[in-house]
Formats: sequence, C-alpha cells, structure tokens
Amino acid sequence: MVENSTTSPRKRRGPYAKSDGRRREILAAATQVFGVNGYRAGSLKEIAAVVGMNPTSLLHYFPTKDALLQAVLDERDKVSDEVAGTAVGAAADPADLPKAFLLIAQNNQDVPGIIGLYTLLAAESATPGHPTHEYFVARYERVREQFRRAFARLEAAGLLAPGITAEYAAASTLGLWDGIQMQWMIDPDAVDVVAHLRRHLSMITLAEI
Amino acid sequence: MVENSTTSPRKRRGPYAKSDGRRREILAAATQVFGVNGYRAGSLKEIAAVVGMNPTSLLHYFPTKDALLQAVLDERDKVSDEVAGTAVGAAADPADLPKAFLLIAQNNQDVPGIIGLYTLLAAESATPGHPTHEYFVARYERVREQFRRAFARLEAAGLLAPGITAEYAAASTLGLWDGIQMQWMIDPDAVDVVAHLRRHLSMITLAEI
Repeated sequence: MVENSTTSPRKRRGPYAKSDGRRREILAAATQVFGVNGYRAGSLKEIAAVVGMNPTSLLHYFPTKDALLQAVLDERDKVSDEVAGTAVGAAADPADLPKAFLLIAQNNQDVPGIIGLYTLLAAESATPGHPTHEYFVARYERVREQFRRAFARLEAAGLLAPGITAEYAAASTLGLWDGIQMQWMIDPDAVDVVAHLRRHLSMITLAEI
Repeated sequence: MVENSTTSPRKRRGPYAKSDGRRREILAAATQVFGVNGYRAGSLKEIAAVVGMNPTSLLHYFPTKDALLQAVLDERDKVSDEVAGTAVGAAADPADLPKAFLLIAQNNQDVPGIIGLYTLLAAESATPGHPTHEYFVARYERVREQFRRAFARLEAAGLLAPGITAEYAAASTLGLWDGIQMQWMIDPDAVDVVAHLRRHLSMITLAEI
C-alpha cells in the first residue's frame, strides 16, 4: 500500500497529463483539508490520505506544506480573478457592476469548500508571523482596491447613493459579504448571501439591480 | 461576580480566592492561545506553559480541552451579555439603540484578542462535528434575534429607513460588523470598525447617530 521511495527506484510516472491530473487531485484535497482544519491543524499526511498517496510521494509535487497552501491560493485566485474579470469586465456599463458582484457571490457559493477555505485561513492568518499573514494583508488590500475602482465608476456615472463614497462602498460591501458568508457557513439555512448583498448594493447605489 | 483586588503580597487571600485567581489566569491564557491558534491547533500544553503550570495540574481546573474552551466562551458571553444588556437596556429610547451598538463595537475592540477568538473559532466551527459547531449555530441565531428585536423597536418608532425590515437590519448589521472586524484583524490600519458600522446604521435607520 505504501511505496517506499528510499529503497525502490522511483517509478516512471506516466505522461505529463497524468502527473498534472495528480497535481490537481492534490490541490483539490488540500483545498478541502485546509478549508476544514485550517493551515495549522491541516496536515500533509491527511491530504495525502485523501488522494491515496503516501506523504513522501506528495512532497514530490509540493515540497512543503507552505508551498502546497500557496499553490491552493494561487490556483483559486486565478479562477476567481477570471470570474471577476469576466463579470466586471463584461460590465462595460457601470450600471451593470452591482449585478456582476452578485454573479461572483453566486459563483463562490457553488464551489464547495471555497468560502470556508478563505474565511478560515483569513481568520487564522490575522497573527503576524502566520505563513499567510502577508498574503491576506495584500489580498484584502487588492480586493478593496478592485471594489473601490468599480464603485468609482458608478460614482462617475452618478450612480452612488447620496453621501456614499467609493471607499466606504468598497470596504462595506466586502465586509458585509464576508460577514454574511460567515453566517451562511455556520448555518446555510439561516441567511441568503446573494439576497443580502443585493439589498446592500441597492442601498449604496442607484443602479437597477 | 466580585471585583478582583490587585494581588498585593500583604493581602493574603484564602485558598479559594487563590484557586479562583489561577482559574482566571488559565482562562486568559486560553483566550489568547485559542484566539491565535484556533481550537484544533491550540493545545493544553501551550496554555499550561503560558501560565507556568504543567498540563496535568491544569486538568485539575479544567478536565478537558473542550471544557476549557467552553469555559472561555461562557465567561466571554457573560461579559458581553452584560455590556450589551447595559448598553441596549439603557437605551430606553429606541432612537438611542444605534449608539448602543457602536458602544459595544468600541468595547470589543478594546479587549485584546477577543475579536480574533470569536472570528477564528466561528470560522473553524463551520464544519458539523466540530466541538463548537452547535455553540456557534445557537450563538449566531441568538445574536441575530437580539439584533432583530432591537431593530423591531426602531421600526415600531418609525425609525427604520424605507424598505428596511428588522430581519434584514439584524443580519446585515451583524454581517457587516463581523466582516469589517475581519479586515481590521488582518490589518488594523486599513479600516475603522466603528466608523463603518456607524455609516451602515445611519443608512438603515433614521435615528440621529
């Protein structure tokens, strides 16, 4: 069941596609394990068990736990940047931007484990010195800035509610989104993330949503 | 609860008081360790080390890790219920309720580690089967209901903004609060929790804030 890589010559792995498939399996397992246990309590051993490998073989794909977590986040960022880029980029008309946010929220909800992963890692990484502390400081700054730019477009089009700045719109939308997702994670029947976000956006903007 | 006199060497307290002091030290250390590491990665060994005890002696005060975590949460709930009770109870005039929320937010920010503790444990306990899953399902439900009752008083006084229900006001205020606290935990200079909450409350209510 466990191949001993120190005594047996390394097996020739299949074609690149096969190895790439294995890599994706590991990333999916790591998303799940880190999403449930967090970084500190999530172990390479558990991730390896999910994909039916031994931990030593897993290190061939990702040399450390930090490298694996970073790969999970990079992979997810790539996907969500694509979704956000498509949704927000497609909104040539700023009046369509609020709908683009709702599309992203719906999309996040449809990817199992992804909200838990980000929420748990963000909460865990609040302590300076945590391996993903800098990542999350930068990520929150980047997302707030993306949101601010979107709301600045609405502002320029005269579509922000009176007294609302693009800065407040950005931080509050991100905050409400994260917080409602937290309530949803704890009890999915208790709140509707998209509906709450829609209500918030319809208060701070004058766009048809 | 009795006030704790400062520990002066002249004022010898009885064995019970001494043991009670030890208990409080353990609870403070546990708040810190669980707040930084979460429940899964936080260990009794580490908590014992913070107070300079051996783990076996610690078990004399709290027989299990679950019991210790529950005691931390009970203790904190007692304090925050008192603060909330005083703040919201004192608001005999519903128009003062939004200010009471801001007082609680300010108070939370002034207690080191408390926001991190709740945020991290809530995120971690999203998975059914986690020892505090049921606690957080019940806690969020209870807090949403407390908030809903407060906003229903504003509604009855004609002080909710048009189109805002007490239910939406409750879930969105709790959500925005949690989410903005998350941004603040990650980077305290990036956002002002009380200012964002004030802005939100001034949008969903018609009260002077």
